[in-house]
Amino acid sequence: MRDTSRAAASNEVSNSALSSPQRRKLGGLALSALIAPNVKAASLLQPLRVAPWTQTPGAPILEHPYGQPSPHEANVIRRAARTWPMPGAASSLTPLADLHGSITPNGLVYERHHAGVPDIDPDAHRLVVHGLVREPKLFTMDDLLRLPSESRIHFLECSGNTGSEWKGPSGLPVQITHGLLSCCEWTGVRLSTLLEATGGTTATGNGQPPKWLLAEGADASAMTRSLPLERILDRAMIVYAQNGERLRPENGYPLRLIVPGFEGNTNVKWLRRLKIVDAPLQTREETSKYTGILPDGSARQFVFEMDAKSVITRPSAGQRLTVQGFYPIVGLAWSGRGSIRKVEVSTDGGKTWANAVLDEPVRDRALTRFQVGFVWKGESMAILSRATDSTGYVQPTREALVEARGLNSNYHYNGIQQWRIDADGSVKNA
Amino acid sequence: MRDTSRAAASNEVSNSALSSPQRRKLGGLALSALIAPNVKAASLLQPLRVAPWTQTPGAPILEHPYGQPSPHEANVIRRAARTWPMPGAASSLTPLADLHGSITPNGLVYERHHAGVPDIDPDAHRLVVHGLVREPKLFTMDDLLRLPSESRIHFLECSGNTGSEWKGPSGLPVQITHGLLSCCEWTGVRLSTLLEATGGTTATGNGQPPKWLLAEGADASAMTRSLPLERILDRAMIVYAQNGERLRPENGYPLRLIVPGFEGNTNVKWLRRLKIVDAPLQTREETSKYTGILPDGSARQFVFEMDAKSVITRPSAGQRLTVQGFYPIVGLAWSGRGSIRKVEVSTDGGKTWANAVLDEPVRDRALTRFQVGFVWKGESMAILSRATDSTGYVQPTREALVEARGLNSNYHYNGIQQWRIDADGSVKNA
Repeated sequence: MRDTSRAAASNEVSNSALSSPQRRKLGGLALSALIAPNVKAASLLQPLRVAPWTQTPGAPILEHPYGQPSPHEANVIRRAARTWPMPGAASSLTPLADLHGSITPNGLVYERHHAGVPDIDPDAHRLVVHGLVREPKLFTMDDLLRLPSESRIHFLECSGNTGSEWKGPSGLPVQITHGLLSCCEWTGVRLSTLLEATGGTTATGNGQPPKWLLAEGADASAMTRSLPLERILDRAMIVYAQNGERLRPENGYPLRLIVPGFEGNTNVKWLRRLKIVDAPLQTREETSKYTGILPDGSARQFVFEMDAKSVITRPSAGQRLTVQGFYPIVGLAWSGRGSIRKVEVSTDGGKTWANAVLDEPVRDRALTRFQVGFVWKGESMAILSRATDSTGYVQPTREALVEARGLNSNYHYNGIQQWRIDADGSVKNA
Repeated sequence: MRDTSRAAASNEVSNSALSSPQRRKLGGLALSALIAPNVKAASLLQPLRVAPWTQTPGAPILEHPYGQPSPHEANVIRRAARTWPMPGAASSLTPLADLHGSITPNGLVYERHHAGVPDIDPDAHRLVVHGLVREPKLFTMDDLLRLPSESRIHFLECSGNTGSEWKGPSGLPVQITHGLLSCCEWTGVRLSTLLEATGGTTATGNGQPPKWLLAEGADASAMTRSLPLERILDRAMIVYAQNGERLRPENGYPLRLIVPGFEGNTNVKWLRRLKIVDAPLQTREETSKYTGILPDGSARQFVFEMDAKSVITRPSAGQRLTVQGFYPIVGLAWSGRGSIRKVEVSTDGGKTWANAVLDEPVRDRALTRFQVGFVWKGESMAILSRATDSTGYVQPTREALVEARGLNSNYHYNGIQQWRIDADGSVKNA
């Protein structure tokens, strides 16, 4: 007689088949007991239904030589927060609640334009690198494609993202509150390689190394920003591709600057000019815009890095829990100053916190997906997340932010975001 | 009088501004001396031309709520190798020569269908998990989205990829020779988590743990494969999203299997069924197809892993070097058995080899971009690449492959690929 107890034990997928992070995502819960009531083993006693799409051949090859999303996902699109008086100087937002992982697909990367999307002929486009360099140079796109390149995954966030929440919960869904946020694999030439090709920089009038870089776009706003050269030299890239293919028109085709971690507008799109200079040029976009006014009326200028921030994307405002049971709380965290070290999640309005599991690998200056499981038993509750980055900085509450910066500023809001789940399962920004 | 020599020295971007990999990409060459002749400093003495697209506002926000590539990139599309007699049982290929980095954008992921692309209603779709499990279960898409998830970047390669080269250089460009190859960030539920939700597996008739898994698609071919359970349990995923958004119809919407490193067809699309079984089921797709015939007539069946392989995508057949000077040699390497340890490049037909620089981080079972610089002086030459993976396996020559496997097989060709550059700059597969 065989030892059935031993056989039974060896024939199960043992608990060790689940990794430690998988267990933590479950919050120590036994998944088989928690699976939703609409998973019905009973229905398996009948033969499996053969669906209509299995009974007839599907669409032919190359119906779309360049593929498109399923028509069933037609609701997953960029949206504007409001009707813009000048639709060329406007923004559209990424549908964060419907996305997964850390990459934003190119068709859903958020937009922010100052004078619309130019239609640039890549063969006629030029990039000039001049100012305090040994040999000023003019590059065609072909020239740039012949330089050594690299690819890195980084987030982009508009400095105005989540400005809706400065004065308290706006009631808006996460696409509108946090959707000026995307993350792509960027490919291009490192700024340091490009400067190497100009023979290096030359001294300023007072014999010092030049400290600033002016970047200018070829759109009708000639979008222009001054950037601190030393701080960005190692990581800034002149980029021609995103997520494997050439840039999309609305994201800077054929060429843009990427300064990992810096506020979105400094990542100048449709890049036509880099000038090495000795001081910031106080351009329109760094005086009339992109400067915060503090309570005492002084200006907080040249604040480049986006501070650590996180947001729960599922469940989030506008969604609804339809049945009681196990749910993952899923969200995104990022920091312009490094990588995410920790994300804590609270399901009791901030009284207690649990460490979420971070998707590996955690990347420098990239969106990091976090999750942790909970069981909803029909109670009302408030869920929130709090990020800590590799510098030790902790995402602040809204109250702490307002205390430090007042309510005059539109930019750099990174307060903890709370969603309320009501007893009927509806999720609200309240 | 200031010390101008000291000032000049301190004001240059020092050589140390370039990282060691950047230097290696240059092959020890001084970039400023090698930049293309069409970079003309002289033209900078005139005022910069203001392009027409800078002189008039561009397109408004949300012209495309779901974005599209630039019309100037209309040539970057999937293509078929030939006209297929049954366009529902066919393939289309990824334009590798025009891509960058390691991610394949969703619109350009290669296709291989056995009975066309079904139009599946995600609300009506079900996944059954049954066979030798404690509690067979039927999952809706909502159920699956409520399980703990994870995201990982992995390549997919059709086992027929590069079959064109078994009998020698085909003359075809890299899109047609190697384009049954893509790489995405996949998000879904780990197979082990799904089995945990069924309470684990149960013993086979002879008291042993079950060793196989049958995966079945909901397309009209009911595509079916048997897979070795233990080997895939840790890494196989039931996937609903690619590169951040829900799967594209042609890539398995709303649900597919991803078995990292295994030949493409085993990553069953439109997944409707997982059955735990005690032995492979010898389905149509593992007997009439996807089995190689060796010179002695015996079958090489259930060869799942795609062996280490690499290919230079730029310069590659059909392209042309237009001027003499510096060029990066850029390509892709991958292995179904782990990560890429090394890629060597030869510019003299394989007599001597240099180590290419790999884009960091090098990921497990993902496309890895490599590059190394060379200076073209108008000579004819043969360029080739050779990958070594983390198991120590070295990509073989075509001759070695044919010696081992003969010429009866259509599958698993991973020979070293050579491109010839002629004196007129044209690049050929010859």
